[in-house]
This record gives sequence, structure tokens and C-alpha cells, in this order.
Amino acid sequence: MSAGRVALVGAGPGDPMLLTLRAAELLREADVIAYDELVSPSILALAPACAERLAVGRRAGHGDTGYRLHPKVLDRVRAGKFVVRLKAGDPLIFGRGGEEAEELARAGIPFEIVPGITAALGAAAYSGIPLTHREHAGQVIFATGHRGDGGLPLPGMAAGRTLVLYMASRNLEANVSAIIAAGWPPSTPAALVQAATTADECTVVATLETLPTCASCTDHVATRLPGILIVGEVVALRAVIEWRGRASVVRKAAS
Amino acid sequence: MSAGRVALVGAGPGDPMLLTLRAAELLREADVIAYDELVSPSILALAPACAERLAVGRRAGHGDTGYRLHPKVLDRVRAGKFVVRLKAGDPLIFGRGGEEAEELARAGIPFEIVPGITAALGAAAYSGIPLTHREHAGQVIFATGHRGDGGLPLPGMAAGRTLVLYMASRNLEANVSAIIAAGWPPSTPAALVQAATTADECTVVATLETLPTCASCTDHVATRLPGILIVGEVVALRAVIEWRGRASVVRKAAS
Repeated sequence: MSAGRVALVGAGPGDPMLLTLRAAELLREADVIAYDELVSPSILALAPACAERLAVGRRAGHGDTGYRLHPKVLDRVRAGKFVVRLKAGDPLIFGRGGEEAEELARAGIPFEIVPGITAALGAAAYSGIPLTHREHAGQVIFATGHRGDGGLPLPGMAAGRTLVLYMASRNLEANVSAIIAAGWPPSTPAALVQAATTADECTVVATLETLPTCASCTDHVATRLPGILIVGEVVALRAVIEWRGRASVVRKAAS
Repeated sequence: MSAGRVALVGAGPGDPMLLTLRAAELLREADVIAYDELVSPSILALAPACAERLAVGRRAGHGDTGYRLHPKVLDRVRAGKFVVRLKAGDPLIFGRGGEEAEELARAGIPFEIVPGITAALGAAAYSGIPLTHREHAGQVIFATGHRGDGGLPLPGMAAGRTLVLYMASRNLEANVSAIIAAGWPPSTPAALVQAATTADECTVVATLETLPTCASCTDHVATRLPGILIVGEVVALRAVIEWRGRASVVRKAAS
């Protein structure tokens, strides 16, 4: 029996075409796919029908405390299986892949880490908002709107800085208030991109001050969907760069 | 004759297996590949032999001022060609894809934007340094060590913050001094990852204070190679998580 092993793989933001070649290769070889709830069914469909599929995210009872690797993953590895641990976005950006890698290393289990397109990059490309720009932004900050971050203070506003907040939908008003309290003017352009790169993608563009109201008026905005909040002058460039509405013929011609 | 079009495509950090499925698909369909010098030859090799290859980056005489889209790209589009504009990493993170998208939109040329694995994510995964971590980092800042950013002030140090500097090799000492001047303690763990995810990859781990000396003592460090500087407590986790030296058998078994 060969020794079991694990690949911690970023599944990207949603669109299966944004998987890396390496991720797709490993999915085809997997004995077991252990996935988070945010990974889309169309990505899981790329694995062989005979591969075992395990939902091991927090909503599947994998709580905030205690073990980091799901016991079923350890169990399959010990039985000699190759487990692909599929995480939404990138494993090392708000993906807790670091914690799982630590545990694998300490248990002496061979593993590899495959980066993925993190949600901010997917949201930026598909909504037409550059995160940096020679004239508008030379720095970008990724933070989280999830309350589990221990209340880390947000960096203040500076001309030339873009702020991206992950998991921003659920407490949108509180998140926007925290950003304004950190010194970002209420008139700063702000966009909420929900379910980026999926069929449910929905982008609302406003200012920090008006975004919660605009989002609540939009049918397609749902607090249950993951949301990326992009704040800064770059958001205004979407009026020029947005390409998916206008140029859908490109997408069709190419697919 | 069909109308010409452009895809602004992220080529990822170097390893061809880190291309997205969409990027690989578009490369196969391209009439013309217009690429930056940092894009590796093994990625260009994925395009059909009959596709025209154009080096259009700044080192090919495409300067900091004046046009953003290379005249040859516009020329090929007007002749009805499909041009893949291949950019290292992600087009919208220090890739100037936003500027090129603006120009395409203003010229009425249909285009799409395909995100790529930005160098920081490649460096993190391959060197075993998580950029966020529940216990050590809830925010990550991407900035640039290139002097063209107009001297934007670096965000100060805060417990739970990771700082990533792109293009950090060439002026490593000046970059490290600027970070310390922004309030980051000289004892903060710091790693320089050069040529991340390529055969030339080289990682040096030290502290902010000792990194320039350590880097200058390392044979494989070369200022001509692109370098990613990662600063913060997360760098110390590499001692546990580093997987490529130890677990090369995984890579072999899987490829």
C-alpha cells in the first residue's frame, strides 16, 4: 500500500475555467475530494465519478475550535489515499490553508500547496476594477469583514491605496462604518461584488456612504452570498473598463 | 473579415501549471501572443507554432510614457486578429492591465480580462508562507518596491498584518530601510522569494535587519530576478510548512 498524501488546492473564485492546470490535473488523480461549501458543484464535477466527495467545511460541523484537519481526511490518508483538499479561492489568503499545512507537517503527512485565484482577483477582473493603477493606486490591502479577526484596525485612507474586504456581505453596514471610522471619506467610490465569476455574480457600485442603501435596493444582492468590497478611486474606472455587459460577444466567440 | 479582439490574460508567476484553464484555452486560439519579458518561454510554448509572438513589454522599448497599448497590438487588431496580451502574474495587480483596458475600451475594441495567480500567491504557496493566518495575520498589504509609485507611504506595522513588496530585489536595502522607517521592528521575520515557482526559485529567510546581508551572501540571489519580499510573523511558519524540499516525492508521484 502506498503512503497517503494530501494536496491543499485553491479552487479559485467560482468559474471552473479559473482553476489552474495543476488543480485540474490533481482533481483528475484524486481518490478523495475534501471540499469547503463555497466550492461550486461545477468544479467538483471535474473529479472522476468514482472519487469520494467529502464536505468538510465549517458549515458541515467543522467548528472554529478544535481540530483543523477533518478527522475523515486523516482517516483516508492513513488508508493510503490521495486526498485533494479543495479550498475556495487561494489556500493561503483567508483560506486557513496555513493551519492545515501546519497540522499535516506535524503529522508527517506528505503534502503540496497549489495556489488559486483569490476572490479579490476574480472580482476585479470580472467586474472591470483594477486593484492597482499607475495613476490611482500603488497599494492594495486585503482584510476581512468577518468578525473573527479579533478587531484588527483597518489601515487608514491614503491617496493611492485600494482596500478590499473579504466576507463583506453579511455585516455590510457595520463594515462600511468601520472603514469610514478608519478615516476613509464617505464619498470614496466603493463596489460590492457578490458571487464573483459565477452565474450569480452581481456588482453594485456606489460610494461608501450610499453603498448599504444601494445594495439593499438591489434584488440580486443576498447576504448569504459571499461578497467582496472594493474601496478606492480605482472603482470609478469600472465605468470605462467594464467589459462583460458590453463585450459578451467576445466571450461567446471564444468559448 | 471578423473584427479583431484582445484578451488581457494573467500568465501567473512562472510555473506553466499555474496558468488557468481559460488562459490555456485562449493561448491555443490566439493569432498573436503579445507578451511581457517576465513571461516564461515554457508558457509561450503552449501557443500554436503558427501564432505570431510579439515582445511588447517595457524592456522592448515600450517606455513609461506615451502609449500604453503597443502600436503592433493595435495594428494586428485592426487586421482582424485575436491578440492574447499575456502579462506576468495578474493583469490588475501591478500589471498595468487597467491602463490597457481603458485604452481598448476607448478605442471600441472588444476585450476580456482573465485573472492570473499574482506573484505573491505563487511565492507564498511554493515557499510555504501563509499570507494570512488565524493566529498571526488577518490583513495583507501588497505594495511595490519599484520607485515609480510616487513614494506612497507604507502602512505601519500592526500585530496581525503581513506586508508583501513586489519588485523588491533591485533596491533591497532601500526597501528594507523604508519598511523599518514606517514602524516595522527590525527583528520582524522577512523572506525574499526570487523567481517564485520557476526553476530559478530561491528563498532567503531572515529578519528585516539581517535580510540584505543574508541575501548578498547567497549565490542564487540575483538583483536581475524579480523578487517578492514577505514581512511579518507568518514568515516564521515556513520552518514548519515548507514542503518542497521535504516532500519532493509528492511532486514526483503526482506529475
